[in-house]
Amino acid sequence: MCGVVGYVGENNSVDILMDGLYSLEYRGYDSAGISVIENDSIITFKSEGKIDNLQNIINKNKKIESNIGIGHTRWATHGAPSDINAHPHSTARLSLVHNGIIENYKDIKDKLVKKGYKFISETDTEVAANLIDSLYDGNPLIAIRKAIEIIEGSYAFAIIFKDKLDKVYAVRKGAPLIVALGKDGKNENFIASDISAVLKYTNKYIIMDEENIAELKKNRVAIYDKDLKEIKAKVSEANWTLEQAEKSGYEHFMIKEIHEQPKAILDTIEPRIVHGIPDFKRDNILDENFWTYFDRVYIVGCGTAMHAAMIGKRLIEDNCRIPVECEIASEFRYKNPILTDKTLAIFVSQSGETADTLAALNLVKERGCKSLAIVNVNGSSIARASDYVIYTYAGPEISVASTKAYSVQVAIMYLITFKISLARKLKNEKEIKILIRNMLNAIDSINKLLDMSEEIKKLCVDYKEVGSIFFMGRDLDYYQVMEGALKMKEISYIHCEAYAGGELKHGVISLITEGTSVVALAIQEKILNKMISNIKEVVSRGAKVLLFAKEGMNIDKDAYDKIIYLPNIEDMFMPIASIIALQLLAYHTAVVRGCDVDKPRNLAKSVTVE
Amino acid sequence: MCGVVGYVGENNSVDILMDGLYSLEYRGYDSAGISVIENDSIITFKSEGKIDNLQNIINKNKKIESNIGIGHTRWATHGAPSDINAHPHSTARLSLVHNGIIENYKDIKDKLVKKGYKFISETDTEVAANLIDSLYDGNPLIAIRKAIEIIEGSYAFAIIFKDKLDKVYAVRKGAPLIVALGKDGKNENFIASDISAVLKYTNKYIIMDEENIAELKKNRVAIYDKDLKEIKAKVSEANWTLEQAEKSGYEHFMIKEIHEQPKAILDTIEPRIVHGIPDFKRDNILDENFWTYFDRVYIVGCGTAMHAAMIGKRLIEDNCRIPVECEIASEFRYKNPILTDKTLAIFVSQSGETADTLAALNLVKERGCKSLAIVNVNGSSIARASDYVIYTYAGPEISVASTKAYSVQVAIMYLITFKISLARKLKNEKEIKILIRNMLNAIDSINKLLDMSEEIKKLCVDYKEVGSIFFMGRDLDYYQVMEGALKMKEISYIHCEAYAGGELKHGVISLITEGTSVVALAIQEKILNKMISNIKEVVSRGAKVLLFAKEGMNIDKDAYDKIIYLPNIEDMFMPIASIIALQLLAYHTAVVRGCDVDKPRNLAKSVTVE
Repeated sequence: MCGVVGYVGENNSVDILMDGLYSLEYRGYDSAGISVIENDSIITFKSEGKIDNLQNIINKNKKIESNIGIGHTRWATHGAPSDINAHPHSTARLSLVHNGIIENYKDIKDKLVKKGYKFISETDTEVAANLIDSLYDGNPLIAIRKAIEIIEGSYAFAIIFKDKLDKVYAVRKGAPLIVALGKDGKNENFIASDISAVLKYTNKYIIMDEENIAELKKNRVAIYDKDLKEIKAKVSEANWTLEQAEKSGYEHFMIKEIHEQPKAILDTIEPRIVHGIPDFKRDNILDENFWTYFDRVYIVGCGTAMHAAMIGKRLIEDNCRIPVECEIASEFRYKNPILTDKTLAIFVSQSGETADTLAALNLVKERGCKSLAIVNVNGSSIARASDYVIYTYAGPEISVASTKAYSVQVAIMYLITFKISLARKLKNEKEIKILIRNMLNAIDSINKLLDMSEEIKKLCVDYKEVGSIFFMGRDLDYYQVMEGALKMKEISYIHCEAYAGGELKHGVISLITEGTSVVALAIQEKILNKMISNIKEVVSRGAKVLLFAKEGMNIDKDAYDKIIYLPNIEDMFMPIASIIALQLLAYHTAVVRGCDVDKPRNLAKSVTVE
Repeated sequence: MCGVVGYVGENNSVDILMDGLYSLEYRGYDSAGISVIENDSIITFKSEGKIDNLQNIINKNKKIESNIGIGHTRWATHGAPSDINAHPHSTARLSLVHNGIIENYKDIKDKLVKKGYKFISETDTEVAANLIDSLYDGNPLIAIRKAIEIIEGSYAFAIIFKDKLDKVYAVRKGAPLIVALGKDGKNENFIASDISAVLKYTNKYIIMDEENIAELKKNRVAIYDKDLKEIKAKVSEANWTLEQAEKSGYEHFMIKEIHEQPKAILDTIEPRIVHGIPDFKRDNILDENFWTYFDRVYIVGCGTAMHAAMIGKRLIEDNCRIPVECEIASEFRYKNPILTDKTLAIFVSQSGETADTLAALNLVKERGCKSLAIVNVNGSSIARASDYVIYTYAGPEISVASTKAYSVQVAIMYLITFKISLARKLKNEKEIKILIRNMLNAIDSINKLLDMSEEIKKLCVDYKEVGSIFFMGRDLDYYQVMEGALKMKEISYIHCEAYAGGELKHGVISLITEGTSVVALAIQEKILNKMISNIKEVVSRGAKVLLFAKEGMNIDKDAYDKIIYLPNIEDMFMPIASIIALQLLAYHTAVVRGCDVDKPRNLAKSVTVE
């Protein structure tokens, strides 16, 4: 995680770097810092905590005149969040910011200490700064090249040198970094962890290939390969707008993004519904055999993406009768997964930069399996590395807690399921058309759910002081409560845990006592009675149950403390709608508890370290 | 859950019923009660809470002269724990106890109310008592027969009638019940949920088939089938001793059973190691093709058994390259699992009576798949219903929190893995012999771990007041921390949750703040560095980490607050030993917190309701 930004041009670098850092704050906010060149010296400001702290320090200082610099917002890995551990890290000759983890930092440090280098921080980044310094003989390209041959791990570096007053250098491996180009021939260029940081200034950018080095001057960008030969890089254009990346009147990005879900889902699926049936030709999946060759599927992801994967598993297994295994990426990559030439591996990631998911994808590629990525960010590492990519069109997701990115992933899972069913002749076109129509109806009901926001908000005062909430559901509802519990946990800091309704009595029920908070989802009609029995087991132990049921269900009054009836949607499509209720519950609870909803403690948006 | 007991003979029924209830208390302790016949009237005592409360009430009364009666200890499902909801439930003509859930109790109740029946409790059981009363015309067999045709759900009933002073009746469906026979022609007979309740008096018993009705007199037991024709039932003999079912000087059953693990594991595996290789002929698996016909495995269980299943999955997938799916029984049974004639379904249950697991097994049988049970209780429902059964020989497990039953299940998973590897020629005999030898060495190290009990005890004061603990591990360690977290949760009432080390940063890390308790297991050498990185992520957020590592590992001092080095065992077999450390941690923590270790709140030993 961590956000990296760099600027060289004709405007005030401090303002532009700070702008960029505010946009990147979702990537980490343990500390922040900038280094800029004024006249012929490097001036550095840093501060523990959010970007505002850094801004305050800068405001108190005399105005800096600078047109070049680098900046960083940190998600701590090695060393606690503190002023000293904040980036940039500097030597007498250079200043450097870093996103990633240097795995062999101890070895390198030991050697540098022997050479007389002193270390003041606990970070692996200071090791990188000193290493490059030790290798520097006036040519930054050569020093950086030598350094990355030594460094093991992941990094995106931006570096300025005291004796190169007009240049910013950058290099990356296993962490994202783009070079953005000044608009309409403007004399300025940028470095950033992602395009959103500089969307205010430009939408043209180059995605850097791993281990290539970028050298930016205000009027020229040069990219060098491993042999330090200059190469021609492809320029991409972002179609995200600045407005999409702003709050537009909402109190937080999260609630804005919750409300964007009907549109995001339709944007994602409508282009893939042609004549009423699913069609992935726009994703370059032209060969119909792609949907029939496999006899087993892996779906790999982390966090929220994993929960979308679980819905996918359930849908594909139920409808297509193909075994699907969901695997946490960080576990998958270090085991020896069973991959054959009849295995399809699907990778789910909003950012397309999730380090563990990317590593899992690389493992699958080494083993010769076909891969399909479901990714939201155009041109991201996972999208580029996989054989096929289905982009979700959720637009930029700024809130650290994912909402709309999850919903579009789930929507794609439905479409894929229908496509496989059709390609394998398990269902005919007419049946699929009906399913798609029902799905579109379900999406339509999201608006009704969004209208329930105030009603749900009122319930959240109950959770103002609680330490734990248990979520329960069965079947499709089980996956949704997992996601609902994660959302609540992430932003409200309440210890939430999701359980399959029938499993509570095998342990967790011992935690249920008078007044314990339970959130239950009982929406699947066919198991309603079983679920109500499970809820009664906790009610009879004193649990205070908030129950989400479905309009038209006849629920015993002694099965809940409070109840919310969600719109009546077919069981199969209920996940599309029910998650909205749980997102709203998490959001309003976090607000009631006074939490920083969009930037929860310790988290970062795209997890680009292992 | 709930325990049912009945007696007819020549001794004091109150003492014998109370003895039985104390033995069955592990099945539930929300309330208890007995009904006995004295002269020609039925006298009932009941009380909320543990059996001691009931005993106090009985002690305060004048001594009862009775040789016949029924008793019950309750795990609440319908209706809170209370005196009124306690069993037995009586009408003017009969008294009845019940283990199970009557699903259509509302319909039945409505009809009975119309007939003029009044209800004082919230239980489904009172409905059953009144139903039988309404059908009674002097012949208990006919009334019971008619009633069970109407009742949907699960039940084990014991019933006495006011006008049948010398008889106890019993019937069961989907809940366990045995009829035990007086020793050496003694004039007495018993009913019990399991044999441990009457082991003091006899070890001869009849396992009742579903829906058969038992009629007990002091000198005769008659079993009637659905047509009320008397049948001849098979008499079994338990080889468990009373001493096994007693604490033998330990403070709690749990710590006794933790210490019994080396013996339990050896008792279980040694009879299945013949000439140094695994052999399941004693389990009547005579056809070697049994180990080679399948291309996919389901392992189904609940709670702790599910964690043993996960180890099984990992071992079989890694070593035999066969995809294995672990499924929570309560989820499995209500989905449409992918079962082919090349699927092997394995069911894991200590008691062999777990209702959800049994239902899952029945689903698999209906679909024509082969089934293998791993069960600890001889002749239990799951053992009898499956095609093959491998018994674990842990002896009776009395502590509600399972320890030795888990370890023997895991041990069988290793043996099965080796057997499959051998049968499929993935490894040769020599290789398997080495593995088995290494496994036996690992089992030997358990004793070293048990010696660390005091050392681990000292750490537990840290958890005296905490509300949450996060457990983390990767790979095989991940499954162990899941089981460790469950153990801690069950008996100490601390909200514990286990996470894959690499997954914490995708959400739960937001709960980590200054002083948060984390228990980490970092034993798998090949991912040690990754795991240490993950631990540092939480340390840098202020977590107080108790780290379990392995002798000889070189661990950074800044990766933990406290550290325990476990004996050096090969990675693959580490689960056999490491779980002991986590069991001890849970046990001592619960003791420090003053919890009732053997009878944790709300839980019951074998979960015979859904």
